[in-house]
Amino acid sequence: MVKVGIAGGSGYGGLELIHVLLRHPHTDLVWISSERYAGRPASELYPHLSGFLDLAFSPLGAVIDADLDVLFLSLPHGEAMKLVPRLRGDLIVIDLSGDFRINDPKVFEKYYGFPHACMDCQKDFVYGLTEINRSRLKGARRISNPGCFATATLLGLYPLYREQWIDGPVFVDAKTGSSGSGRSPSASTHHPRRSQSLFPYKPLSHQHLAEMFEILDTSSNPLVFQTYSVPLVRGIFASHYLRTKTSVSPEDVRQLFIDYYGDEPFIRWVSGCPDVSSVSHSNFVDIGATTDGSHLIIWSTIDNLQKGAAGQAVQNMNLACGFPETTGLLTTPLFP
Amino acid sequence: MVKVGIAGGSGYGGLELIHVLLRHPHTDLVWISSERYAGRPASELYPHLSGFLDLAFSPLGAVIDADLDVLFLSLPHGEAMKLVPRLRGDLIVIDLSGDFRINDPKVFEKYYGFPHACMDCQKDFVYGLTEINRSRLKGARRISNPGCFATATLLGLYPLYREQWIDGPVFVDAKTGSSGSGRSPSASTHHPRRSQSLFPYKPLSHQHLAEMFEILDTSSNPLVFQTYSVPLVRGIFASHYLRTKTSVSPEDVRQLFIDYYGDEPFIRWVSGCPDVSSVSHSNFVDIGATTDGSHLIIWSTIDNLQKGAAGQAVQNMNLACGFPETTGLLTTPLFP
Amino acid sequence: MVKVGIAGGSGYGGLELIHVLLRHPHTDLVWISSERYAGRPASELYPHLSGFLDLAFSPLGAVIDADLDVLFLSLPHGEAMKLVPRLRGDLIVIDLSGDFRINDPKVFEKYYGFPHACMDCQKDFVYGLTEINRSRLKGARRISNPGCFATATLLGLYPLYREQWIDGPVFVDAKTGSSGSGRSPSASTHHPRRSQSLFPYKPLSHQHLAEMFEILDTSSNPLVFQTYSVPLVRGIFASHYLRTKTSVSPEDVRQLFIDYYGDEPFIRWVSGCPDVSSVSHSNFVDIGATTDGSHLIIWSTIDNLQKGAAGQAVQNMNLACGFPETTGLLTTPLFP
Amino acid sequence: MVKVGIAGGSGYGGLELIHVLLRHPHTDLVWISSERYAGRPASELYPHLSGFLDLAFSPLGAVIDADLDVLFLSLPHGEAMKLVPRLRGDLIVIDLSGDFRINDPKVFEKYYGFPHACMDCQKDFVYGLTEINRSRLKGARRISNPGCFATATLLGLYPLYREQWIDGPVFVDAKTGSSGSGRSPSASTHHPRRSQSLFPYKPLSHQHLAEMFEILDTSSNPLVFQTYSVPLVRGIFASHYLRTKTSVSPEDVRQLFIDYYGDEPFIRWVSGCPDVSSVSHSNFVDIGATTDGSHLIIWSTIDNLQKGAAGQAVQNMNLACGFPETTGLLTTPLFP
Repeated sequence: MVKVGIAGGSGYGGLELIHVLLRHPHTDLVWISSERYAGRPASELYPHLSGFLDLAFSPLGAVIDADLDVLFLSLPHGEAMKLVPRLRGDLIVIDLSGDFRINDPKVFEKYYGFPHACMDCQKDFVYGLTEINRSRLKGARRISNPGCFATATLLGLYPLYREQWIDGPVFVDAKTGSSGSGRSPSASTHHPRRSQSLFPYKPLSHQHLAEMFEILDTSSNPLVFQTYSVPLVRGIFASHYLRTKTSVSPEDVRQLFIDYYGDEPFIRWVSGCPDVSSVSHSNFVDIGATTDGSHLIIWSTIDNLQKGAAGQAVQNMNLACGFPETTGLLTTPLFP
Repeated sequence: MVKVGIAGGSGYGGLELIHVLLRHPHTDLVWISSERYAGRPASELYPHLSGFLDLAFSPLGAVIDADLDVLFLSLPHGEAMKLVPRLRGDLIVIDLSGDFRINDPKVFEKYYGFPHACMDCQKDFVYGLTEINRSRLKGARRISNPGCFATATLLGLYPLYREQWIDGPVFVDAKTGSSGSGRSPSASTHHPRRSQSLFPYKPLSHQHLAEMFEILDTSSNPLVFQTYSVPLVRGIFASHYLRTKTSVSPEDVRQLFIDYYGDEPFIRWVSGCPDVSSVSHSNFVDIGATTDGSHLIIWSTIDNLQKGAAGQAVQNMNLACGFPETTGLLTTPLFP
Repeated sequence: MVKVGIAGGSGYGGLELIHVLLRHPHTDLVWISSERYAGRPASELYPHLSGFLDLAFSPLGAVIDADLDVLFLSLPHGEAMKLVPRLRGDLIVIDLSGDFRINDPKVFEKYYGFPHACMDCQKDFVYGLTEINRSRLKGARRISNPGCFATATLLGLYPLYREQWIDGPVFVDAKTGSSGSGRSPSASTHHPRRSQSLFPYKPLSHQHLAEMFEILDTSSNPLVFQTYSVPLVRGIFASHYLRTKTSVSPEDVRQLFIDYYGDEPFIRWVSGCPDVSSVSHSNFVDIGATTDGSHLIIWSTIDNLQKGAAGQAVQNMNLACGFPETTGLLTTPLFP
Repeated sequence: MVKVGIAGGSGYGGLELIHVLLRHPHTDLVWISSERYAGRPASELYPHLSGFLDLAFSPLGAVIDADLDVLFLSLPHGEAMKLVPRLRGDLIVIDLSGDFRINDPKVFEKYYGFPHACMDCQKDFVYGLTEINRSRLKGARRISNPGCFATATLLGLYPLYREQWIDGPVFVDAKTGSSGSGRSPSASTHHPRRSQSLFPYKPLSHQHLAEMFEILDTSSNPLVFQTYSVPLVRGIFASHYLRTKTSVSPEDVRQLFIDYYGDEPFIRWVSGCPDVSSVSHSNFVDIGATTDGSHLIIWSTIDNLQKGAAGQAVQNMNLACGFPETTGLLTTPLFP
């Protein structure tokens, strides 16, 4: 059994890690931190986990003395970069924040709004988009887990950029549920508003753009990426609009994605119209498309807390630890 | 035209007053306050009112110099009692908070958690449950507008208590939408939680109980009152459970309510099962019932921001000003 | 007073017409039809309208003998075309279905799936996108009211197509609430599914495309239009993605829309990000934009049952009858 | 491995059985029926299960020849009673409908509206409220699985009736999510209505009352039971209101429930206010209470599709088959 800790266990990312780790056969969740709830039982904050979780929150600083094999960091942006330099080199560290996803400090500062504090550590990190970086993730000791929007859009667009199918820009209309904003209440997640609202936010400036630029060569095909809040709790549904260089049939599109992802355990090709509810509470990515021959729409949908955060983090942990990649993750999506 | 101001115009109660006053034919909304947004245009906080509201927020203190005929107070509990002693005696003051609903200072302190600061002012206030206190509200200069739960439950139970139909206790299961918690985000109105939750709160201790005790004689028939949060935005639905002293038929029940409320412009008897959506965005109270002969359920439903707050406040203003009681208020409920 | 009837009054379009007409100062709603509910009081189907509507449903055939000045047709696609030839020429007829929006019978059949039955009547109809066809709507006797998606997208794109700003295709990501599917329950509006789903439907083939082709010259700039179901009840939010021929600033965009719509009573320019909730229960169209200089996103949002159906229909009736265009329609959007 | 079939696999009850059985270590789901979808792959109806379920729907009649150890019946009321007489005696049959819960044919007919067709079979059935009937369920071959409301209310009230704590009637206010209405769309589950409605239905006449009368002796303490539809998808939250014969403290109440249920693996005592979201997607029953000394409110909440249907059915299957009772069922509730 692998001894696992979660730094920042009181947010939704930390909570989803708990859910996944509690059903993982090879891990013991032995440590969890929260500054605000330090000393209090985790099941007090999470009454639905009463009976499942016999742990109290520790203060973050206690991580140095914790006996761990794997540490997940589910901290606010800017916190992981302060902590990582103090951690043992042989500890498997998987960071769910944006701190170690960007190689260029200027790009980081532009999108995150503050300077990076530890670019020295950056070179140790492997970007954890599992399907693209699998070989480098095996046995890795430092993993930066992708952003939720980046996961949905990169997996949707990767084959098209690589195969140079695209003529002109790609427009992305990416919609997210309210759990993506985390556990802290805010005006945009206030129930009287959110339950009957739909609105764009961060116009053309979402920070996940920065990590997409690391993976896609957008020099010839600009990526115009816009995020929206919708009245879902869970899920991201990203629609990618583009013109193709040459005429394509629906079968051409299907074949391209099968070529790239046909063996992937967590990517499912959907022949009709995908629905965000079909991946709920699971680590799957459902991808579908429609085309009129010269224009193409790629649909990509994930559960933002699973493949968009905790699920992919455990998928990466499995690779880092040498477990089969799907261990603990092949649960069915849940509906209704 | 009557010149109207709103002290505390940045919350949902103040906002609903704006909606109602903008369609009232005899009022000019000329003053609105907010400490936090003082100096900023009201339409900045309320983009949906762009084009309708050419007013900026004033600081609360400026109320003394404002040229007003009517002032609505939509402030947090405890604020109105500080302001009222400083207001002109001939100003019509309608307070939507709980500050002036309770005559006994000990009861006030028990339910509100702090001592009352101005019991001297209390005697000037008429409790604004319009259907019960109509004669005293005509020409009144100080009105304490009822709480939303109190409005639903008092109107549902008043005939039964007055006619002494009840044997033993009355149990009330009162459910509310999230707008009842106001415009400030909180854990219980966080969309990821609220949209899939249902839970009781303030066990047997909601402060609206205090004002119900002022109207109902519960000495022989205790009122056991419990509030619940449900995933609605608008509306209160209160279910009242009791045993009757003698056998009653459905027609007996209907006749009782027709006798009491048959001429009321805002109370509608529902022959089947009422639905909270049938009063949405309106000042109506829909009441219905079911009985097995010896046990009785009375259902009472209102829009918490209308009959439960701003609508009834304007209904009371109409009486205070000598306008027909329904002026500006006979709009249809809106569905879907 | 103008005597008004509604053919097909038992659906959501008919219901919203009732709401609007009940607050219109110059109309009497005197006739309403439903085959299914013929003979029954309208308030039985609409309990929320109890006290407001003293009318029974008539069978559709009785329309011939009804004494009406204005008749709204809110019937399923294919029904209006059978009825219109039988109606008096001086009756003002406003059709909310798709029957008379398309001039080319082949295009009609392609998008609606059945042949048109009365192309002779077609030439009498004016397409009721008020802001574009105002002069022809004044005094008109036959009006085809636009589709909800068409209204949102045409108003959002009209200035750009007319001024030839667009380079290449326009991609439209158009999201709709569940009330757009009407009053009949279906799998896609089943609450357990719809409340947690988001999915595209009618891939690149929505019938509202046909009427958009009548207004926009898409020969140089193809319109790639995709519809989505989201967990809202009311509202359409359409995002329009395009590349501009020359570099544009945010101010350029704003100025273009002010030039076109600055005097429009129902179009509001939004400087930040529009929200579908800001037009709820109103006839407004809120339009905003963002640009990086060479790519442009236009956001357009309406209430699908108001500006997308009943509100615009009454706006057109006002023009047809010679009333001020905004009569009965300048109500505030309602929130929360 | 036990070979399992589901008769009526196209509804929500059947679907939830699939979810539970797919994670059960000792079962093979080998047969599933649907008249409507016979011959089609189950994953076509359930796209979220793509990759998990390699079965096609069979017609119901084929059950006779299916090689099964356990058969779940998830059919409409009235269908199981026709099928059961034709099934092998040694087959473990677990019926999720109401067909075999009632011993008195007159009571059955009163609550279900049609006469029972096979009272001869009735004597073979054990009522599957696991916590009450555990000893009789071990090794049983015919099990009638309880109704969702009955499960919540019986577990909440059983200790109080048994210990004769109650003075006078018990009033039950039982609220249910929309998935309780099944997979077929209807007016009351239409999203535009349900998402903003709250209404009682089946006044004092819900059919689950009949099975409650089998377990509780209500001769001295009438059970006044009322159901409500609320805008949840999953969950039942039942509030039970009563007066106690003698004064009780919160600790007395807690102790009573601990005495009865302290060793139960699926019943959790909640010290504060339970929330329906705390049992979501799990087999748990969360019970809590509040009292003023003489009046008592018992809160009981379950997931209607799990402990209210498929979860309890598998709990009973475990007992019938000799597996540990919690096998496959100790998954965490899922939130958000």
